[in-house]
Amino acid sequence: MPQPPAATAPRKIILDCDPGHDDAVALLLAHGNPNIELLAVTTVVGNQTLEKVTRNALAVGTIAGITGVPFAAGCGRPLVRTIETAPDIHGDSGMDGPTLPESTIELDTRHAVDLIVETIMAHEPGTVTLVPTAGLTNIAMAARKEPRIVERVKEVVLMGGGYHVGNWSAVSEFNIIIDPEAAHIVFNEKWPVVMVGLDLTHQALATPEVVAKIEAVGTKPAKFVMELMEFFTKTYKDAQGFDYPPVHDPCAVAYVIDPTVMTTRKVPVNIELTGTLTLGMTVADFRAPAPADCHTSVAVTLDHGKFWNLVTDALVRIGEVDA
Amino acid sequence: MPQPPAATAPRKIILDCDPGHDDAVALLLAHGNPNIELLAVTTVVGNQTLEKVTRNALAVGTIAGITGVPFAAGCGRPLVRTIETAPDIHGDSGMDGPTLPESTIELDTRHAVDLIVETIMAHEPGTVTLVPTAGLTNIAMAARKEPRIVERVKEVVLMGGGYHVGNWSAVSEFNIIIDPEAAHIVFNEKWPVVMVGLDLTHQALATPEVVAKIEAVGTKPAKFVMELMEFFTKTYKDAQGFDYPPVHDPCAVAYVIDPTVMTTRKVPVNIELTGTLTLGMTVADFRAPAPADCHTSVAVTLDHGKFWNLVTDALVRIGEVDA
Amino acid sequence: MPQPPAATAPRKIILDCDPGHDDAVALLLAHGNPNIELLAVTTVVGNQTLEKVTRNALAVGTIAGITGVPFAAGCGRPLVRTIETAPDIHGDSGMDGPTLPESTIELDTRHAVDLIVETIMAHEPGTVTLVPTAGLTNIAMAARKEPRIVERVKEVVLMGGGYHVGNWSAVSEFNIIIDPEAAHIVFNEKWPVVMVGLDLTHQALATPEVVAKIEAVGTKPAKFVMELMEFFTKTYKDAQGFDYPPVHDPCAVAYVIDPTVMTTRKVPVNIELTGTLTLGMTVADFRAPAPADCHTSVAVTLDHGKFWNLVTDALVRIGEVDA
Amino acid sequence: MPQPPAATAPRKIILDCDPGHDDAVALLLAHGNPNIELLAVTTVVGNQTLEKVTRNALAVGTIAGITGVPFAAGCGRPLVRTIETAPDIHGDSGMDGPTLPESTIELDTRHAVDLIVETIMAHEPGTVTLVPTAGLTNIAMAARKEPRIVERVKEVVLMGGGYHVGNWSAVSEFNIIIDPEAAHIVFNEKWPVVMVGLDLTHQALATPEVVAKIEAVGTKPAKFVMELMEFFTKTYKDAQGFDYPPVHDPCAVAYVIDPTVMTTRKVPVNIELTGTLTLGMTVADFRAPAPADCHTSVAVTLDHGKFWNLVTDALVRIGEVDA
Repeated sequence: MPQPPAATAPRKIILDCDPGHDDAVALLLAHGNPNIELLAVTTVVGNQTLEKVTRNALAVGTIAGITGVPFAAGCGRPLVRTIETAPDIHGDSGMDGPTLPESTIELDTRHAVDLIVETIMAHEPGTVTLVPTAGLTNIAMAARKEPRIVERVKEVVLMGGGYHVGNWSAVSEFNIIIDPEAAHIVFNEKWPVVMVGLDLTHQALATPEVVAKIEAVGTKPAKFVMELMEFFTKTYKDAQGFDYPPVHDPCAVAYVIDPTVMTTRKVPVNIELTGTLTLGMTVADFRAPAPADCHTSVAVTLDHGKFWNLVTDALVRIGEVDA
Repeated sequence: MPQPPAATAPRKIILDCDPGHDDAVALLLAHGNPNIELLAVTTVVGNQTLEKVTRNALAVGTIAGITGVPFAAGCGRPLVRTIETAPDIHGDSGMDGPTLPESTIELDTRHAVDLIVETIMAHEPGTVTLVPTAGLTNIAMAARKEPRIVERVKEVVLMGGGYHVGNWSAVSEFNIIIDPEAAHIVFNEKWPVVMVGLDLTHQALATPEVVAKIEAVGTKPAKFVMELMEFFTKTYKDAQGFDYPPVHDPCAVAYVIDPTVMTTRKVPVNIELTGTLTLGMTVADFRAPAPADCHTSVAVTLDHGKFWNLVTDALVRIGEVDA
Repeated sequence: MPQPPAATAPRKIILDCDPGHDDAVALLLAHGNPNIELLAVTTVVGNQTLEKVTRNALAVGTIAGITGVPFAAGCGRPLVRTIETAPDIHGDSGMDGPTLPESTIELDTRHAVDLIVETIMAHEPGTVTLVPTAGLTNIAMAARKEPRIVERVKEVVLMGGGYHVGNWSAVSEFNIIIDPEAAHIVFNEKWPVVMVGLDLTHQALATPEVVAKIEAVGTKPAKFVMELMEFFTKTYKDAQGFDYPPVHDPCAVAYVIDPTVMTTRKVPVNIELTGTLTLGMTVADFRAPAPADCHTSVAVTLDHGKFWNLVTDALVRIGEVDA
Repeated sequence: MPQPPAATAPRKIILDCDPGHDDAVALLLAHGNPNIELLAVTTVVGNQTLEKVTRNALAVGTIAGITGVPFAAGCGRPLVRTIETAPDIHGDSGMDGPTLPESTIELDTRHAVDLIVETIMAHEPGTVTLVPTAGLTNIAMAARKEPRIVERVKEVVLMGGGYHVGNWSAVSEFNIIIDPEAAHIVFNEKWPVVMVGLDLTHQALATPEVVAKIEAVGTKPAKFVMELMEFFTKTYKDAQGFDYPPVHDPCAVAYVIDPTVMTTRKVPVNIELTGTLTLGMTVADFRAPAPADCHTSVAVTLDHGKFWNLVTDALVRIGEVDA
């Protein structure tokens, strides 16, 4: 697929995901945008079991025509808590809706945690961005196994949490609450963390206009996204009363591509681990200006048009793929 | 003081408070507004020790020229936690700023908890509204000592909490966090609870225009309010960075006088008791429409002009008092 | 009933209970022993609802022929937690087994919390001992409503907890876990607290020899105790695998009568309020010698023979009662 | 060093440690006893920083003349909590007292977590025993990174916890409380876990008789143990009031050598993660006979003579080493 030269060198990212309808869109966006260099795709239990989300990731990679990028499976369960998946949102397969092709991508034999560590350590300091769009088990394990990655990573741009919005409890979001201890680890390491949470992603609705634009692309990958959105629309309507589904995960990728796609605010964020009503809450302290050494920020307002243009443009660039 | 007839019978309230600058304004508003019938004033540890806030309450009652209303002291410490006061906001006396007169009101010999219970049981069911503007220790004790008050009370309209705003921790408000167990008791009893929290009261700023209007009243009670606001402005600036101080407590009284002074929203609210970062949070669950039996609601948007007019009008009605 | 003069003035106690098979024995022991002056009997939700345990208390008082002692009902639910009763141990009535007589005792109109406070304040400082054999809701409420009782009470000798033994969870005992916040209040006030916990009371087994001695007394009250023990034996066998039932509550009374009936050890004890596995645990810190100001001690070893002799002697003294 | 043939094949173990005075004795015991085949020695932050305990482990290996066994460093901090070390007990170096030799052992380049996983997977199922004598971070990480090790490990025999005894809080032991989340992971995996806790190890006192026997061995390694015990005696006296120091870690090794050195009891054990007073407690539920699938047991009573004979014999077998 022809790509115009990026204004600056593309951003190197590792996408750690649990596809997942919106993870799929995130992967397509990452692959189809010239400002992103996808170094690795890693999977972790979340929307469904590790086995299922790994199969889904390989299938999406196949649909997108991704080659030369290692895909590796990681942790099959959270650090401390028992497994909790989201079949009400993502179906039994974790990516219900479209019929998935046989994968033409072979799974890397390394553990995702090792792939993450090795990839970061193999690149120049400050060049690799982590983009987790799932529970943070893999990232937390990597930070504990090789602490040197923390100062080497450019940024962690994650989809998860919500400073004023919850979905899995009154005040907690799925990706955080399924492994709050891992989230606690990730938010407390001193790398820059951009939390693209529900406050932001509930603005990333796949409205009929958005869906029409994607349909107009007319390719198989676009059709795949359409089928994902069709299923997602239904489950988000049934399970959470949304008219149009919030497409969370590509928002994190979009921020890496172009930070002006959203506004963010620097604020200390920490993870509640012992609350009865608040377990897994991403507690943001807005009471005072963030201290100078504050390394966390939260996404606030999305430019809806710009965001979906990025997604559509990526699909156009990916074009038709022989999968 | 002459009062025009209220359109409907005035609302009978018990004001449970810990004066406190804004409690003082709340008491003046309750006394000066014809839609309120003040049945009792009770005090509880909070902004300062029980001894100090009780002295302050009596002094405010004296300044306002209140007669025939019992004032009683209640609990001197929270149920489970140790005492935490707010000298940074309210000074060492709990109501620093003005010089207080000797009280001409004699303290009722009953315990506030008993006075609350007896007052509620002595009036028709559904006629007494509780207006707590302090920690909820007295109210919780009353509900446990005499459970029948719960179905007998018309409504609990309390100043405290915040669904998206905290002041004593990132997500918790002073009145709730100083006795979270008491708050848990109050919010879980099945009486109607209107939470007038920081989300609302941070809109009730004593701006220069507001202060000028109060000054224009020209009476001793108005001058007293001016002096309170002067001190409050300074401490809120120093301690929490506010340009103008939020005058929390009269908002709850204002709601009882005229619910249209603010918008509210029905939503389940519960109190976090075990959180490390979230202790005392008033956890509101906005994920779905409130269930039919939801008995809690939260204040959302204040009509700033209407609110301060109520306060000024009350001061006008109180007029000059021979204290 | 004729009573030899006590060597010293009898100990004035308030028995706060939730009869309850073993509470009944505790009340009989308190009434029948000349070293005890029973000032009041108060009831609180616990083994069964307040209504049931109050009815049971009055029935036991009637069986024992108690006159001139006020009986008052207290709190019908714990401070923060929801009601949990123990029908598996005490049956649906809270005192299943014997047929209960109509009570000839009239319930005092005062609330138990007020009766406790008034009784303590009406006697000389240092003369009244509180003997709670139930959840600590009443006692906690009394301490919060009238803090001056704390330094006025001689001692709190309570049945509850266990430093190494649990029955309602792995490490928690029923009387504490049903209202852990109340227990936290009681253990943290600076009055002397003697915790007669499961470590001790699991030694107070009603063995066949014990039962035979009680049977030999031959009176109606003794027969009543026999019937209680019969039922208690069965439920403790079925529910907790005991060969002979531990008769907890009279151990606390026995300690007041004669501290040499058991050994105790001074040790700091506090109540766990946030533990997932340990809620309501009476955490004793044996790591170092107790500090000089340590006001809590725990019962360790029971003199089984001496204890049951006290019970049998009391039954003998009570004699036949015209109930 | 000559070794008589073991009656059965020696037990293959991985020693995961944080030397530490008693870890050193554990390593000497493991090396010197013919019933143990030491597959690997791994280190983890605990008594001191990872750097220090790793240096110490290599020094002890050198003193003991260990060859052909990989030593690898693992996690430098706990999963979730911040680092807490024990300089009051083990000194600034983690093994104060003796002068340590330059190590002749080269550190394995693998991460301890990988070495643990690889070693277990390289041996027949059911043949490798894990012997952690430190915080459980490495073991927990290994179980999460490669879940198949859980059913492959023969047994986890760990020094840590205490069902009725604490040392780092009233009810918690150091190795557990420094990484309670890791302990929660290890105790909840379905491998057999033998908890050799403080209940047992506080019986393993290095009395003057014990020290005299060790001195009588007369070798450099024995002299090294003497110097360790000298320091350990002093700090345990000063910090915890012990007359003779409890030598915890070799007890776990001793159990692997000969389970008859102690009695154990099957009982469900879990780790408290949210307790205010009980964080890191190893909560054992003794209320009923352990269920059939109970996979945890706790050490109860030590055969003091047999235990110390194992230690002395190991020193004799190790003999004089050219370090």
